[in-house]
Amino acid sequence: MAKYARSPLAPEAFPELPVIKGARFASHAAGVKYQGRTDVMMVALDAGSSIAGVFTKSSTRSAPVLDCQEKIGGATDEGAVILVNAGNSNAFTGKAGVESVQAITTSVSDLMETPISRVFTSSTGVIGEPMKHDRIIAALETLKGKLDENGLEDAAHAIMTTDTYPKGACATFEVDGKTVNIAGIAKGSGMIAPDMATMLVYIFTDAKIDQADLQALVSAFTDSTFNCITVDSDTSTSDTLLMAATGASGATVSHDTKAFRDALHDVMLDLSHQVVRDGEGAQKFVTINVTGARNNAQAKVHAMAVANSPLVKTAIAGEDPNWGRVVMAIGKSGAEADRDLLTIRFGDILVAEKGWVSPDYKEEQGAAVMKEQEITINVDLGLADGSSTVWTCDLTHTYIEINADYRS
Amino acid sequence: MAKYARSPLAPEAFPELPVIKGARFASHAAGVKYQGRTDVMMVALDAGSSIAGVFTKSSTRSAPVLDCQEKIGGATDEGAVILVNAGNSNAFTGKAGVESVQAITTSVSDLMETPISRVFTSSTGVIGEPMKHDRIIAALETLKGKLDENGLEDAAHAIMTTDTYPKGACATFEVDGKTVNIAGIAKGSGMIAPDMATMLVYIFTDAKIDQADLQALVSAFTDSTFNCITVDSDTSTSDTLLMAATGASGATVSHDTKAFRDALHDVMLDLSHQVVRDGEGAQKFVTINVTGARNNAQAKVHAMAVANSPLVKTAIAGEDPNWGRVVMAIGKSGAEADRDLLTIRFGDILVAEKGWVSPDYKEEQGAAVMKEQEITINVDLGLADGSSTVWTCDLTHTYIEINADYRS
Repeated sequence: MAKYARSPLAPEAFPELPVIKGARFASHAAGVKYQGRTDVMMVALDAGSSIAGVFTKSSTRSAPVLDCQEKIGGATDEGAVILVNAGNSNAFTGKAGVESVQAITTSVSDLMETPISRVFTSSTGVIGEPMKHDRIIAALETLKGKLDENGLEDAAHAIMTTDTYPKGACATFEVDGKTVNIAGIAKGSGMIAPDMATMLVYIFTDAKIDQADLQALVSAFTDSTFNCITVDSDTSTSDTLLMAATGASGATVSHDTKAFRDALHDVMLDLSHQVVRDGEGAQKFVTINVTGARNNAQAKVHAMAVANSPLVKTAIAGEDPNWGRVVMAIGKSGAEADRDLLTIRFGDILVAEKGWVSPDYKEEQGAAVMKEQEITINVDLGLADGSSTVWTCDLTHTYIEINADYRS
Repeated sequence: MAKYARSPLAPEAFPELPVIKGARFASHAAGVKYQGRTDVMMVALDAGSSIAGVFTKSSTRSAPVLDCQEKIGGATDEGAVILVNAGNSNAFTGKAGVESVQAITTSVSDLMETPISRVFTSSTGVIGEPMKHDRIIAALETLKGKLDENGLEDAAHAIMTTDTYPKGACATFEVDGKTVNIAGIAKGSGMIAPDMATMLVYIFTDAKIDQADLQALVSAFTDSTFNCITVDSDTSTSDTLLMAATGASGATVSHDTKAFRDALHDVMLDLSHQVVRDGEGAQKFVTINVTGARNNAQAKVHAMAVANSPLVKTAIAGEDPNWGRVVMAIGKSGAEADRDLLTIRFGDILVAEKGWVSPDYKEEQGAAVMKEQEITINVDLGLADGSSTVWTCDLTHTYIEINADYRS
């Protein structure tokens, strides 16, 4: 993971995450594939924790994803464990992949005295190689011994693959006079696109919330956060978001509790942006706003067409205000557009309107916007009120380097 | 155009094109944008020529495309002229773009004594910059003077933009004891994806064929040739295929004439492959065969998902037999797939079957296939009889170089 320099778009520092009472974390170097770094993390959750999940829609999703999906929504009266490894995704590993999940979850269940229906696993890394689950099982005792309520930051390191920095986000707020905390970690830097647009995300809160309410919020917010980012239009077979609410704060919330909704959405948006900011080879963080579409769904089709266009992304890498490629991407998206009603702005600069370059536009203005590290492209279709915002990064030589040489 | 070396995938030489009686060609250095090279071509077609066309489906298509689309299918009793420039696409140029088309077509019509309804223009190059149509109009007299039945190869040079080699293909065959010729040229190397998947294609034959029959054939064959190639998933605002049949051979054909159908399909397939072989930065020519899909349309969705996946394309660039990324692309395509029925072959090598790597597969075998310049990826879905073949190239550093710096 130290092969590539920390992304220039990374946050200055990892945030100081609050303790989430009722959750303890451990990480360890199990040597699943990587040497000289941690590569497994364990989360132990107290009895009563609600757990919600959102998963990749890939039709070739991995064995651990299928296992998690079956388990979400069960009874919450017992504890729960999340076990994650980096280096091998246990995806497209056939019957052996299912056996690896069974071996790991059985061992965790026995060791942690937790029902197997409450043991969730994720695996991230290379696809299609046999999983050395013995190495993970051999690390379980050690992981159990290391469990610590302050272990979440270390866990963020343990789940990295091609990430150049660990990703964390948090929020603290009051509900009915009680302090509630949310803390989350994520990993992901390539194979990033809806649905859903990250590889692994784990969020914890000490709020008390019904599982169905938690699931509803997490699912809804995924649509406007992780499903609105794209690095390379490729969707992982392993994408997993798990959220656990321990209830240890004593504050009860529901899907209607505004402070909780706002804080959770902020944490998810922050983590999703951090994934884009670590997009393989990314030098620019790009926001695409589409307004004036026939409806929100069509706006998103346009926005994603711009965000995924290799020609738009390479132009941004070259700091070239090539708005013609934005026009091209809108044109090819398949959603409704009228060339002569299009308005395009780079940041605040009006570039094109009514089917042509704006008479006041000067190329130097667009070029100045393109030199920034954070770029916003605004497209108004002039048709109706549909809108969408998505986030992406530029396409650079380093993306090619990383991905032409990933397995070697 | 000489900035990048000739593609390693280019044919050894430009073919010896047959004369198409009834068609004459000229090219000239008009200085529309490029200096020191030809950049306009003119084709003069004798009275009686049938002309068919297929155009980009982009909703932001260029002024010349819209003009051509209106004119296709008219009477054929008069001559016709095709006028093409490289360097400026006259796309997204608003009212001025329409005026440029009018100015050029009016001048051509006057000079060549051809009805304006039979004057077709195409423009290729940068989007959104005002078209210096005066330079084209100033070259018309010279072009007229240069018209020559042997001028098609030179015309193939004049329409190039980022192409590293001119593209031509031809066929000669007998119909009812008469010799019939087909000769075509194409340009295109980036912004290549259905629909349709090239920038500019011009095909000529001396067969006599009804316009409606010609249109039906050209439209149908575009679906299995130019609409089955992709370089970067981006669709041009200018894509145009024009085909003219002069009838000068005296051989009459219809949409049912097998020799004509076969020859035309071959020429179109050859030209479409040449476009992929000149894909910006391409080092590998890749064929994706999908079989066993629910139907042909779903097979094409899968094949295009593989062909457009940046992770698959960078793996091929890195000569990495990373079949896991093929699984990922099938999984994300949205078309039906069952992970545990998938079979994947690299060339003849069985790599994966029944949801996992084949027990007999050795990585060296896949690696050997990946070292070839021409690579075939075969995916069988095991569901039904749908199939599709598409062609693409790898994604390399040179693609980034070309496209991060196109306008400078």
